[in-house]
Amino acid sequence: MKKQGVSIGIIGLGTIGTGVARILLKKRGELEARLGFPIVIKRVADRDIRRKRAVRLPLNVFTTSADKVLDDPDIDIVVELAGGIHPAKEIVLRAIKNRKHVVTANKLLLATAGTEIFRAALKNRVEVWFEAAVAGGIPIIKIIREALAGNTVQAIYGIINGTSNYILTKMTDEGVDFAEALKQAQALGYAEADPALDVQGGDSAHKLAILASLAFGVPFSLKKIYTEGITRITPMDIAFASEFGYRIKLLAIAKRTNREIELRVHPTMLPGEYLISGVNGVFNAVYVEGDAVGPTLYYGKGAGDMPTGSAVVSDIVDIARNIRAGAVNRIQGLGAPQGSGLKIKKMDNVRSCYYLRFSVMDKPGVLSRISGILGSHDISIKSVIQKTRKKEKAVPLVMMTHEAREKDMVDALKEINRLSVVSGRAMYIRVESAQT
Amino acid sequence: MKKQGVSIGIIGLGTIGTGVARILLKKRGELEARLGFPIVIKRVADRDIRRKRAVRLPLNVFTTSADKVLDDPDIDIVVELAGGIHPAKEIVLRAIKNRKHVVTANKLLLATAGTEIFRAALKNRVEVWFEAAVAGGIPIIKIIREALAGNTVQAIYGIINGTSNYILTKMTDEGVDFAEALKQAQALGYAEADPALDVQGGDSAHKLAILASLAFGVPFSLKKIYTEGITRITPMDIAFASEFGYRIKLLAIAKRTNREIELRVHPTMLPGEYLISGVNGVFNAVYVEGDAVGPTLYYGKGAGDMPTGSAVVSDIVDIARNIRAGAVNRIQGLGAPQGSGLKIKKMDNVRSCYYLRFSVMDKPGVLSRISGILGSHDISIKSVIQKTRKKEKAVPLVMMTHEAREKDMVDALKEINRLSVVSGRAMYIRVESAQT
Repeated sequence: MKKQGVSIGIIGLGTIGTGVARILLKKRGELEARLGFPIVIKRVADRDIRRKRAVRLPLNVFTTSADKVLDDPDIDIVVELAGGIHPAKEIVLRAIKNRKHVVTANKLLLATAGTEIFRAALKNRVEVWFEAAVAGGIPIIKIIREALAGNTVQAIYGIINGTSNYILTKMTDEGVDFAEALKQAQALGYAEADPALDVQGGDSAHKLAILASLAFGVPFSLKKIYTEGITRITPMDIAFASEFGYRIKLLAIAKRTNREIELRVHPTMLPGEYLISGVNGVFNAVYVEGDAVGPTLYYGKGAGDMPTGSAVVSDIVDIARNIRAGAVNRIQGLGAPQGSGLKIKKMDNVRSCYYLRFSVMDKPGVLSRISGILGSHDISIKSVIQKTRKKEKAVPLVMMTHEAREKDMVDALKEINRLSVVSGRAMYIRVESAQT
Repeated sequence: MKKQGVSIGIIGLGTIGTGVARILLKKRGELEARLGFPIVIKRVADRDIRRKRAVRLPLNVFTTSADKVLDDPDIDIVVELAGGIHPAKEIVLRAIKNRKHVVTANKLLLATAGTEIFRAALKNRVEVWFEAAVAGGIPIIKIIREALAGNTVQAIYGIINGTSNYILTKMTDEGVDFAEALKQAQALGYAEADPALDVQGGDSAHKLAILASLAFGVPFSLKKIYTEGITRITPMDIAFASEFGYRIKLLAIAKRTNREIELRVHPTMLPGEYLISGVNGVFNAVYVEGDAVGPTLYYGKGAGDMPTGSAVVSDIVDIARNIRAGAVNRIQGLGAPQGSGLKIKKMDNVRSCYYLRFSVMDKPGVLSRISGILGSHDISIKSVIQKTRKKEKAVPLVMMTHEAREKDMVDALKEINRLSVVSGRAMYIRVESAQT
């Protein structure tokens, strides 16, 4: 059992690193009172140590060399906040090899190299914690791994990309289009200059890979996640959704159906009265359904220096408590899939209700031709809206379907898109609701 | 480090006990795979062991004697689900004395005897966990104690009584009055024959005492919590609230203002667009604001065999992990107030906005007399609704005020209630919103 305080080294003093350092310095006394021992920042490595920081650390703490952190025998925990895959992966693996525990917020690294990292950690009897990698300040990793330990997780629905949620909220509240909402998000610092990873769903998929691995014991499996972003969503779709009583959210979905797991990220129509439909702006929320606990929801900020810093600090505290109690690897297989044997369902076989919007010539027989094609693919229509009637001009034809198979829908839409009375490509959005 | 499985004894096989046993039996294999060791139900004590149960346990597990559990040297964890204060308190203290860890769902016991219990646990180096005591399946204890370890909690707002929330939801959705909604709740088993503890706020106060102790390090202090239930709320108030864009919820509030803590349970008007305003039916939710993480919200079922059982099992798993890792008391001062020195603010000094409803004779000068009295007590009016105009009959006069001091409001209302143009007693509901 370690008698002294626990020493940490931070690699990467960007937004999150600064937040972590600020919390640890500001709360030094409070944390020591709570834990019974201090947490000390021994070293901070960053390429640029001259930049002005929002945090004051003694000068001799700073170094430009990650090695100074990784090779320091006094450091118990390495906090990897460099981001990206290289050299983050090398940093993490070297820390593990040097028998240091690791805290990381690096979802990309875990989603792509998680299996290798956790195997190395197990071998070297150190812990790798990653609360900040998913949903920022929401303690979703701890909740799934500890609080829901008595549950078999049935489903996870996450709004886990704040940028996309901000854009969809703007589009919903102000009726602006995607490009305009993105511009506003960029102006406010909520979206990056290249927003692809956020708005095309990749970031959500990284996080979903981590959540699914924890909740369902499947290997980190980024490639098997169906991923679709929000760039095609138009204000018109949002308005129609609202007419049906729905809201559109970018959801990351992991769902158990029989002996298979669905893993998918896509814009989703949700009943407006669902709690998760009221999660707006840059906020994140994760809905988790356990077989014992039933439906639960966890809500908070998914990004930002202090919320993400809060998650990193909770990991540091957890590892520090283990170190002091002589209880390393108290929780078995941190992040290591238990090999549940569950298979990931092919997207083709996923069943869902659909919202469809066609741009059609307002001629007799159009509805019957479209519904005929849908019917021939085993898709039945629940309701139809056809709004304006302008002769010889394309008008929107909107439908909600009953549950159908994805492959059938894709095939049917291909056929419909070829019809001469249909202009452009059909829009389709999957619908999730208890009523199918 | 204990090499065998961890053995538990359950005292009290009522609703929650049955849920716990069901989860542990059904998940035996899954839990063993997850933990690396089995959790074994060694003994179950209940006064009535002949009753048919929703769970199948070997007959030799059952006993009518709590002593058989408390004195069994093989039992590591005693799960106290007897409820009430006696003999629950004696059971818990004896288990502690016998060096057994304790899991309890007994909020009443903790709120009244928590200090004594945690002192005994500390002395005997055992752990007392109580996740199920507050908000059922929502892991709010773990979240405050572990996940938000890097935060100074600023405020907690909880919907932590499902019965009251069900009744208020019914009243809101269907316009029925309190008595009718209560009757429906009783018919569905959501309210007890004697609903006083739920609808008069006492149950929420018990839970708030526990939350406040954890979050703010103040002693368990049931007596210092201002407690007001929902029995006075009328459909008319709910309708007016809705006109102002608000919903009425029974909130348990713990809020840091300067060096004081506000602790209060009362019906509260909240802006309809707040996420917590959308928490309906028997569901619970706890909003926690931390200085680092910002606003967070946790939502789930607050009662029921399986949700509460899920919380009890997560405690058992946590203690079992500590036992196996040789890390008892890994988290210091479980439940023991750290003695933050924060004082509990007198209700008289609490500041809030108010909704006021008077029943007045529709005569000239009434508004001016009422607003005059309010003004003389430093209370200013933000908006007024006066709906119907029936000469010589009492009509409702409704106001929203700016922030005012509770004592001033109470004094002003006393004066107003004495006016001859005012019939009956004024209704007042506190308003919580970011805009004051």
